[in-house]
Amino acid sequence: MQLLYHAQLVTMDEKSGGYGLIEQGALAIEAGRISWIGVETDLPERYADATRHDLGGRLVTPGLIDCHTHIVFGGDRAREFEMRLEGASYEEIARAGGGILSSVRATREADEEALLASALPRVDALLAEGVTTLEIKSGYGLDIDSELKMLRVARRIGQLRKVTVRTTWLAAHALPPEYKDDRAGYIREVVIAGMERGHAEGLIDAVDGFCEGIAFTREEMAGIFDRAAKLGLPVKLHAEQLSDLGGAAMAAQHGALSADHLEYLGPDGIKAMAAHGTVAVLLPGAFYTLRETQYPPMQALRDAGVPIALATDCNPGTSPLTSLLLTMNMGATLFRMTPSECLAGVTRHAAHALGLADRGRLAPGMRADLAVWDIRHPAELTYRIGFNPLHACIVGGELV
Amino acid sequence: MQLLYHAQLVTMDEKSGGYGLIEQGALAIEAGRISWIGVETDLPERYADATRHDLGGRLVTPGLIDCHTHIVFGGDRAREFEMRLEGASYEEIARAGGGILSSVRATREADEEALLASALPRVDALLAEGVTTLEIKSGYGLDIDSELKMLRVARRIGQLRKVTVRTTWLAAHALPPEYKDDRAGYIREVVIAGMERGHAEGLIDAVDGFCEGIAFTREEMAGIFDRAAKLGLPVKLHAEQLSDLGGAAMAAQHGALSADHLEYLGPDGIKAMAAHGTVAVLLPGAFYTLRETQYPPMQALRDAGVPIALATDCNPGTSPLTSLLLTMNMGATLFRMTPSECLAGVTRHAAHALGLADRGRLAPGMRADLAVWDIRHPAELTYRIGFNPLHACIVGGELV
Ligand SMILES: [Zn+2]
Ligand SMILES: [Zn+2]
Repeated sequence: MQLLYHAQLVTMDEKSGGYGLIEQGALAIEAGRISWIGVETDLPERYADATRHDLGGRLVTPGLIDCHTHIVFGGDRAREFEMRLEGASYEEIARAGGGILSSVRATREADEEALLASALPRVDALLAEGVTTLEIKSGYGLDIDSELKMLRVARRIGQLRKVTVRTTWLAAHALPPEYKDDRAGYIREVVIAGMERGHAEGLIDAVDGFCEGIAFTREEMAGIFDRAAKLGLPVKLHAEQLSDLGGAAMAAQHGALSADHLEYLGPDGIKAMAAHGTVAVLLPGAFYTLRETQYPPMQALRDAGVPIALATDCNPGTSPLTSLLLTMNMGATLFRMTPSECLAGVTRHAAHALGLADRGRLAPGMRADLAVWDIRHPAELTYRIGFNPLHACIVGGELV
Repeated sequence: MQLLYHAQLVTMDEKSGGYGLIEQGALAIEAGRISWIGVETDLPERYADATRHDLGGRLVTPGLIDCHTHIVFGGDRAREFEMRLEGASYEEIARAGGGILSSVRATREADEEALLASALPRVDALLAEGVTTLEIKSGYGLDIDSELKMLRVARRIGQLRKVTVRTTWLAAHALPPEYKDDRAGYIREVVIAGMERGHAEGLIDAVDGFCEGIAFTREEMAGIFDRAAKLGLPVKLHAEQLSDLGGAAMAAQHGALSADHLEYLGPDGIKAMAAHGTVAVLLPGAFYTLRETQYPPMQALRDAGVPIALATDCNPGTSPLTSLLLTMNMGATLFRMTPSECLAGVTRHAAHALGLADRGRLAPGMRADLAVWDIRHPAELTYRIGFNPLHACIVGGELV
């Protein structure tokens, strides 16, 4: 039995409408879970014998949750980034082997060890900022073996590091060259067949797709989601990033956990998401990198009561971002989210986006995934840019 | 005598027009300076006895230089940031004690120890990313004692950490309330009198001002620069950030080291800067935080041959940024600078902006301020967002 005291507890309690701050708070941990939380002077007698840890007035939040990443991939795209800034055209970059297919090629060529070795420093950058739960998608393999290889690496990350990893099957990310004239074949032979195999191997926690003019149609994604439903797998969707195809509404009607990106989301999509409790996952790192000018409909999402999460979208092409704190600042600076919305976006709502009911808030019964910060006010987490005030991290009740 | 070998040396040699890369390079250090640099196989006999360090193929750049910061200040402005995002008007924030004057109040109230304690974690965040030279401005005291207190703290940072600190007298940052009806009095009694006293105490390396409608006029700044010249102090100027007042041209005509911000810089300013060798210091962190839409005239600056530097502008109001790597990414993403321009902007050109001829490049005779990176291509420093691949830092020939 552990007791953290002399702490400011940022509970992220839903009813508080904000941080749910408990000043001079204490928090008891038993068997990896929070067993009591409240004002120090209200501590029940039974915690008198707990091992006590003085937090020196520091601030405690739920462990952060990055609910949308493509953090496992082969190669990098630094030279492509450079060529583009030096004025190369898309054709020149494609001829030089750039674009998403360069990540696919490098991911196919890399073995599990190489993928793991390249992903771990990126994962460690997130964990160093208090991330305790991390979603990782496949999607750069685009054949069954390479997609499953990515998810095996994701599972290994969850074993090697003190972090909960949730895996997502994203074979419907792009059409590989070998299927370029056979969309239906790719969906049947790779997306669905691989999903069934990955599911049988216990590698898949959820199913995702990229619904966009340059990727898959709403109807194609609906077919994939119907098959996911038969396996009991929850779904989510990259939707309305570059245009409004009605993907978010379709996903919501399939009971999706989340619809992600959403710059071009319209009123029908918002209404469907609100009706089905689908989380809006906003990805300001991609918005920033692509110099997007179309903003996600923040106020309409708020007005409709759609929960809003924030994630890094860590990926080699459009968001080579490995800081969830910076993502919070971008949520505020670019999308005008308040600091308490940003913090809810990487805690309570991010947990919701992953279908995890046991984390993202500080409350009795929740997993003891905690971040302890050297700051005085929770707004500092969002306000500062490129600064990490993490003091300590507790994962499942254990100090990391 | 030390020898670094098995390294990729990013010399930032001016004539290379880019990185000046030496593959399979070696670099010899004697008495804190680079004594030889070149391809390993060309190493002269006399280095046969040097202590050898295998860098494992890692990349070596000049130590990074942050040539524009306000990193010493009292208080923070996180709550003001939050109030603004929650919809508070400027009047409400001013009534709640926000704005630059809140930093002035907190800086005046803090003693040297408190200012130092609050600045060190910010400085350490920069140093952790390979910064080996750092400029620090006064400007939140606005009375002689408080301004000099800031510069004493800056000097102490240079003693406590392995970093060269260059101090800048910025009493002409804003008009304090007690002089609000006596601009000339403030300039005479505080800006100039304090500059003379600080110079006598050895606290001032350069003189700066904020030339803007909300701050000081071009003529006021010219008068201050004339007095600085009499003391032999180099000058620089915050210019053309919010409007074009001709500040950069005036500064250039006074032989300024740099003109900084420059979003509204026009052709006359560019011409004068090019003619006088004044460096353009761009501050994308402030541009980002203020959601500025007016871009500095990149192509015109390039065409005129004006050297372009990048800096964090670390300050509590408009750029609470403590990552020079992120600043490089912002230089590329927001201002469309190439990765090699970004790296030159925090090495060779940043040294130039501080009037330091002994650093910012890898060449014989230069200070051995080096950053060693776990990357394969220098473009990765600019491409990645929120990631620190620093392997080691060498300052004046000593491993930090
Ligand atoms: Zn994505
Ligand atoms: Zn400044």
